[in-house]
Amino acid sequence: MLLNSDLLDQLAIKTDAKMIFLVMDGLGGMEVPEKGGSELQVARTPNLDALVTQGVCGLFDPVAPGITPGSGPGHFAIFGYHPMVYNIGRGVLSACGIDFPLTPRDVAARVNFCTIDGQGRIVDRRAGRIDTDTNRRLADKLRAEIKLPADVEFFFETEKEYRGVLILRGDDLSDQLADTDPQREGMPPLEPTALEPAAKRTAELVQSFLTQAREVLAGEPRANMLLLRGFAKLMPYKSLRERFSLTPLAIANYPMYRGIARLLGMDIHPVLADIPSEFAALRDNYDRYDFFFLHVKDTDSRGEDGDFDGKVRVLELVDSLIPQLTSLHPDVLVVTGDHSTPSALKGHSWHPVPVILSAKTVRPDTVTHYDERSLTLGGLGRQPMMNLMGIALAHAQRLQKYGA
Amino acid sequence: MLLNSDLLDQLAIKTDAKMIFLVMDGLGGMEVPEKGGSELQVARTPNLDALVTQGVCGLFDPVAPGITPGSGPGHFAIFGYHPMVYNIGRGVLSACGIDFPLTPRDVAARVNFCTIDGQGRIVDRRAGRIDTDTNRRLADKLRAEIKLPADVEFFFETEKEYRGVLILRGDDLSDQLADTDPQREGMPPLEPTALEPAAKRTAELVQSFLTQAREVLAGEPRANMLLLRGFAKLMPYKSLRERFSLTPLAIANYPMYRGIARLLGMDIHPVLADIPSEFAALRDNYDRYDFFFLHVKDTDSRGEDGDFDGKVRVLELVDSLIPQLTSLHPDVLVVTGDHSTPSALKGHSWHPVPVILSAKTVRPDTVTHYDERSLTLGGLGRQPMMNLMGIALAHAQRLQKYGA
Repeated sequence: MLLNSDLLDQLAIKTDAKMIFLVMDGLGGMEVPEKGGSELQVARTPNLDALVTQGVCGLFDPVAPGITPGSGPGHFAIFGYHPMVYNIGRGVLSACGIDFPLTPRDVAARVNFCTIDGQGRIVDRRAGRIDTDTNRRLADKLRAEIKLPADVEFFFETEKEYRGVLILRGDDLSDQLADTDPQREGMPPLEPTALEPAAKRTAELVQSFLTQAREVLAGEPRANMLLLRGFAKLMPYKSLRERFSLTPLAIANYPMYRGIARLLGMDIHPVLADIPSEFAALRDNYDRYDFFFLHVKDTDSRGEDGDFDGKVRVLELVDSLIPQLTSLHPDVLVVTGDHSTPSALKGHSWHPVPVILSAKTVRPDTVTHYDERSLTLGGLGRQPMMNLMGIALAHAQRLQKYGA
Repeated sequence: MLLNSDLLDQLAIKTDAKMIFLVMDGLGGMEVPEKGGSELQVARTPNLDALVTQGVCGLFDPVAPGITPGSGPGHFAIFGYHPMVYNIGRGVLSACGIDFPLTPRDVAARVNFCTIDGQGRIVDRRAGRIDTDTNRRLADKLRAEIKLPADVEFFFETEKEYRGVLILRGDDLSDQLADTDPQREGMPPLEPTALEPAAKRTAELVQSFLTQAREVLAGEPRANMLLLRGFAKLMPYKSLRERFSLTPLAIANYPMYRGIARLLGMDIHPVLADIPSEFAALRDNYDRYDFFFLHVKDTDSRGEDGDFDGKVRVLELVDSLIPQLTSLHPDVLVVTGDHSTPSALKGHSWHPVPVILSAKTVRPDTVTHYDERSLTLGGLGRQPMMNLMGIALAHAQRLQKYGA
C-alpha cells in the first residue's frame, strides 16, 4: 500500500526547528443548547483564540469519518503512524503503560479484577473499584500460588485500582484469543477461546491460569475473579527519531499515553503533579529536545464524566497556560486532541477533532474563535489526522522537496 | 488494499436506530445565470433549508474528484461499497433490474433493439423507441428461432421499450468481450471481440447469436438489429444485513435501482405510482425496517432532458414531502444523490453531490440553505461518498469503538 506517511520518512531531515504538540485528550465536544454551545464555544479561551486567528485550523478525523477511536489509534494518527496499520492491542498498551519490557515471545492481556456471585456470574466488572494496595496484595498472591508448565513464564502486574496486566512468555504463543471479558454483567466470564488453531495451547495455558486464579481469589469479598481482554503481541515500531530525525520528549501523566510514547521511542518525563507542572516541565526541557508531546488528560476525563462545566474549566486552565508555550517561540505549535469526548455523550465519539497549527509560514484563514463550528471554515479543511505530522514537519522546514 | 469500509463491517452492531437515505438521482446541478442560479438555488425548499440548518452538510465525490459516475458506482458508494472495487457490469445491472436470477455460469449483456439501413449501418440506436409490446413480441420470436450449441442456454429478456437483456449460460463463459454497440450512429455494429484468449468461445457464441438475430429481425421496419454492451458476470456482494446488521427496505421505481438494491440484499417495495406514494410507502413500512433507501428518479430525468424548470419543480415537490420523513423522527436522515445531473449539461457530471446529514448528535455548521454554493462551507467538507455510510452509522450509534 502506498501511504503518504512512508513518503515522510524519505523526505524528513534534521534541522534546529522545534515542534510542540499539545494534545488535549478527548478535546472535541458537542453543542448543548441549554449550555449555550459546545464546551469550546462556552469556554473563555482568549489565548487559543489568538492562536487560531494567527494560525491555520481544521477538523481532522483520527481514523476515518464516522469511526470512534480508542486512545491508541487516536495517538498513532497524531504522530503520523497509520492507525489501521499500527493498531495496537490493548494488552501491549497496558504493558507499555506500566513500563513492562515486553519481548517478542510475550502475549499480554489487560486484566480487570471483578466480582462474581455464587453462580459464577459477573456482578461487578471492576470489583467495586478496589484500591491499588489491594490489587498489589492479590497480585503477590497470584504470583506465589499459580503454577504453569515449566516452559512458560507468567507475569501478573498491577496497573492501578482494579486494573492489571497479564503477560505469558514462551515459544510459539499466539495472541489470537478471544476476550474472556464479556463487557457486561449478569453472565459468567467467557472461556478463553483460540481464534486460530495455532492459538490452542495458549488458550489452554490461559484457561489453566484462570482456573487457578479463581481458586486463589475465592475468599476475597470483591476481587474474586479476573477478566482478560485485548490479547496482543508486540509489534515493532520505527521510532520518531528513525522516521523523522526528531529528538522527542513526552510529558504525559497517564500510563497509556506514556506507553504509546515509549513505543515510538520518545523519552518520557517523570509523572508530574498537575497540568501547570506539565507546562513548566516542557519549559525546563526546552533546550534538550526538538519535539514535545504534551498530553492533558483531564479534558477527556471530564467529558467521560458528562461534566460539561468541568471540561470547560479544564479548557480555560489550559488556555491560561498557552502563553508559556508561545513565549518559547517554537517553530511549530500544534494544539489538538486524539479524539472527541463530548460531555453530552459521556464517551469517545466519532466527531472530527479541532486542530490549530501555528507557525511563521502558515497561511491564515478566516477563523478567529477556537471551537468546532468555527473550525468548519478552517484553512486546513477536513482531513485525516494522519496528515498532521507531515504538515507540521513541513512548517518546521523539516521535509525536503519530493521529486525533481 | 486497506479500506475504511472493511473497518465498518468489523465495528457495526445492531441497535434500534432507524436510518433513512433519501437519494435524489442526479441531484446536483450548475448555476445558469439567466435562471438566477442552480436548480437547488432557484427552488423554494423551506424544509430542506431547515434540515440543513439543524444538520451538517457537505459535498461528496461519488467515485473521485473529476469522475462522472454511472448510476451503479454512484449508488454503491452511497451504501459504503467501494465503487472501484465493486464496479458492476451493465449486463448484470440490467439482469437484476428485471429480476432475472443470475447464476455464476451466466454472462449478461444489455441489449438495445436498433435500426440498421441497407448497408448495415446504424440509423437509430433505439429503434425509434419501439414500445414494450413490440419488444416482447420480438423477444418471443428470437427465443423461438435462434439455436445455440446444446451445452449453452440463452435467455433473451425484455426490459422496457427498446431495452432488453441477453444472458448466456454455460461452462467457462467469459465476460471479457468488447461491446458491439459503437455508441453512435452511421456505422455498423461492432463485431463481438474477445478481450482475452479465454473469451474466444463466448465471442463466437455471441457472433452466432447476432447473425441469427439479424436474420430473424430482417423484416422488421424499425427493430431490425441488436446492439450489446456491458458483458458481465455476477460478482458476489455481502449484503447490508451481513455487513452492518441492517434490515433494509428499498423504495425505488426504476429497474436499475431496484436491481442494485436487490444485489445488496435489500427488500424491494412493489413499484409505486409517483413520488408522494413512495414517501407514503416509507411511512407505512416504518415499523418493519431500520434502513430505508428512498429513490427519486425524476431529478435525474429532468436534468437529462435539460429541463431546468422541471428539475426545480421536482425538487420543490420532494421538499414539500420532507415533513413526512422528519415527523417520523428517524435517528439519521440523509438527503443526497448518486451523482450530479446539471440540466445545463443534459447528462451526468463529475461535480460533487450535496449531502445533508440530520441527527441529534451532529455538530451543526454555518450553512442555512441547501444548494451547491452554500454547501462549500459545510461541516462535512468535501469527502468521498464512500465515507457517508460510516458517518451515518456512527450517528445511529451503530458502530463500536475502534482500538483500545
